[in-house]
Amino acid sequence: MREIIKKVLERVKPTEADERLVKQAAEEIIQRVKAACAKLKIDARPMLVGSVARGTWLRDERDIDIFVMFPEELSRENLERQGLAVAREVAERKGRERFAEHPYVMMEFKGFDVDLVPCYDVAKPSEIKSAVDRTPHHQRYMREHLTPELADEVLLVKKFMEGIGVYGAELKTQGFSGYLCELLTLHHGSFQKLIEAASEWKPEVIIDHERNYTDESEPAILFEGQPLVVIDPVDPNRNVAAAVSAQNFSVFVRACQEFLSGPRREFFFPKKVKLLDAREVRRILKRRGTKMFCVVFETPDLVPDVLYPQLRKTEHALVARLGQAGFEVQRSDVWGDSKSVILLELGTSKLAKAQTRIGPPVTIDVKDFIQEHLKSKEKITGPFVNAAGRVVFELEREETDARDVLKQALEERTAFGKHVAEAIKKGYKLMEEAGLVKLLHDRKFREFVSEYLTRRLPWYR
Amino acid sequence: MREIIKKVLERVKPTEADERLVKQAAEEIIQRVKAACAKLKIDARPMLVGSVARGTWLRDERDIDIFVMFPEELSRENLERQGLAVAREVAERKGRERFAEHPYVMMEFKGFDVDLVPCYDVAKPSEIKSAVDRTPHHQRYMREHLTPELADEVLLVKKFMEGIGVYGAELKTQGFSGYLCELLTLHHGSFQKLIEAASEWKPEVIIDHERNYTDESEPAILFEGQPLVVIDPVDPNRNVAAAVSAQNFSVFVRACQEFLSGPRREFFFPKKVKLLDAREVRRILKRRGTKMFCVVFETPDLVPDVLYPQLRKTEHALVARLGQAGFEVQRSDVWGDSKSVILLELGTSKLAKAQTRIGPPVTIDVKDFIQEHLKSKEKITGPFVNAAGRVVFELEREETDARDVLKQALEERTAFGKHVAEAIKKGYKLMEEAGLVKLLHDRKFREFVSEYLTRRLPWYR
Repeated sequence: MREIIKKVLERVKPTEADERLVKQAAEEIIQRVKAACAKLKIDARPMLVGSVARGTWLRDERDIDIFVMFPEELSRENLERQGLAVAREVAERKGRERFAEHPYVMMEFKGFDVDLVPCYDVAKPSEIKSAVDRTPHHQRYMREHLTPELADEVLLVKKFMEGIGVYGAELKTQGFSGYLCELLTLHHGSFQKLIEAASEWKPEVIIDHERNYTDESEPAILFEGQPLVVIDPVDPNRNVAAAVSAQNFSVFVRACQEFLSGPRREFFFPKKVKLLDAREVRRILKRRGTKMFCVVFETPDLVPDVLYPQLRKTEHALVARLGQAGFEVQRSDVWGDSKSVILLELGTSKLAKAQTRIGPPVTIDVKDFIQEHLKSKEKITGPFVNAAGRVVFELEREETDARDVLKQALEERTAFGKHVAEAIKKGYKLMEEAGLVKLLHDRKFREFVSEYLTRRLPWYR
Repeated sequence: MREIIKKVLERVKPTEADERLVKQAAEEIIQRVKAACAKLKIDARPMLVGSVARGTWLRDERDIDIFVMFPEELSRENLERQGLAVAREVAERKGRERFAEHPYVMMEFKGFDVDLVPCYDVAKPSEIKSAVDRTPHHQRYMREHLTPELADEVLLVKKFMEGIGVYGAELKTQGFSGYLCELLTLHHGSFQKLIEAASEWKPEVIIDHERNYTDESEPAILFEGQPLVVIDPVDPNRNVAAAVSAQNFSVFVRACQEFLSGPRREFFFPKKVKLLDAREVRRILKRRGTKMFCVVFETPDLVPDVLYPQLRKTEHALVARLGQAGFEVQRSDVWGDSKSVILLELGTSKLAKAQTRIGPPVTIDVKDFIQEHLKSKEKITGPFVNAAGRVVFELEREETDARDVLKQALEERTAFGKHVAEAIKKGYKLMEEAGLVKLLHDRKFREFVSEYLTRRLPWYR
């Protein structure tokens, strides 16, 4: 393991030259922010935050995060206006404005992706006005606690998370953020110690590094049902791991178990998913012998953090609707890019007309059950009694074709994501295998389908 | 209810003329038995038993049971030999010999079906040598306890059981024997009181009329799992209701509930099942939209009491085998007459090749599960982790066509009834809808199929 860790670190740790370049770029932006504030007579000061500020950035990462901190007294309206004004000045109108919880500006600078984020300079993290206000506090906390040795360990943790496919707190990924990786490393003391501990995790792990709670049952209740709870040292009301899904929690735990029993570089550097061509996709679909439905529509104009939860909500609504009609969805997935796609894979898309409705045992009161079905138009046979002593009717199934069920659900759009429902209302296509194959000309969709059809944990590729 | 009961009794109670005829016939046979014994120098004496002896026979019934009682000391071999010799003499070689637990002779006499059954004249019913030896004791017990008023009530109970389709302890029916009807009437005091009591029965009812057990938990343990336990007054180790299936128990209970809340003559005299013609059968099968398989083979030469349990055992083996392969059997049934048929009705007969195999949660030990499937030829995708945090593989289903599964099961014949397995080994046909329709030229099969396709409790017809 030592050997592998050493080699990985050599590959992921920025060289001194890398370091110099990024630090220079960051410093230059900071100077520009200061100049802009002076020029525009705005009372604000810049702060370099994130992995670059803490020396925990992976060599391949090209992100510089600079926060522009405004006085607490400023109105939100003024903060947004002044924040954008400064950012625009710095970006010289070449930046792109983004709107997450509040607006910020992205720009490219000397090959780096720079985020310029206005925030409030609040004294206590418990009194923040928006989520981004916490970031300067995280920065101060880590500057204080993260030694250079620990920073190297963080690099290993981040790369491991990235390799096994769970790095990133975006709602598309639902994984481990950079800050979470830092905290986990800090808490356990090294990459290896974290891996050892996590290999024995069971859901509802609680990590309270600063011992903000005297009694562990308190955070257990506060964050009930979340597989991993990591109390934010700067704000005990916050679970830094709130984004981590049960699925990614389990992937990480399993990866730790397997890495311990057989360390391999593939955990850090997995093989890429092999891109399938149309012929291969057709062959695999045929081999699966399932019925694949593809709901295709224009992607609503949303950031991925809003789009993906809506796509998933819509996916779940369709799976539930099919389930109610008696169709089992074997697997499903969503994709949102140039187009949006909801993939639904069924074992069978046609059901028999006759279905059995089993009532309560005769010795319980079955009068209502019998009355309900006796006069129904759907009745085929019954009432009779089955071998287990229960009253049975056979009824005509309303919907025997999954395609019809889906079409109806797409007209009703019940429990869909809001903007996704609107996009589908404007128009959608309900495709099957042949339609899916036609969409493969889009390379990103082809990547998505290739991964779906060959899915395995990254280190098994 | 009084009115209905009165009218039913008028229809089912034998007239004095009926009575005279049957008694004369019985007396004549008894004299013949005595003469035969004298002629053959055999030490045995006849006894009229059963419903005719007790005045509890329904007017339509044409059965006379005469037991020929031999001394206890006689060897079984001699009992069988001498018993048959007497019976043959009486039947004048026109009788048919039958072999149940031991041999007996059936003959027709003046329009009645007469059973001549040799048995041992044992002093204590607990010391019987075969099941038939108990019958003379039942006869004596009932002669002592059954008043003429109670005998009328028995007629109502029997006719009710017959009407709702649960009369008869044969293993084809698995219902209530005549003796059981008598005991239930004796215990509760009248038809109406029995109906009232039974409408509130829940499985594992225990009736111990002679209070042979001081503690009810004793018979409860002795006859555990049997829905109805009626202790035989002449032999407390025997449950007179042992033949009653959970299904028929429930049908009876439900019939009692419904008869109490709305007495109708249809409970005693249900409409016959409407006989469907080929066109109607085809139309109904199409409406059901299911996949019907028919296994057809020569009926083994067995009495129904042996044949039906074997047919059902074979039916269950096929249902289980299909279930293992992933096919749900929606309904099934058996029929054994001129041919034997096992009917298996599936919702779908084709499954997708890809099936999902879900392992344990990652935080439990999943190593074995992963090892088991990782190198298997059937693997399509996996291992990956699903939303619930469980390890998943997708595997190729071995059998995707129910017809192939059935064909294989019919070659292997695992857990089939013994003689049914032999008959199937000699040859069988695996038919589908078209084949079934061709078999309808057999009227009895047509009755069976008509009932199956229009199944409802008899009083709902």
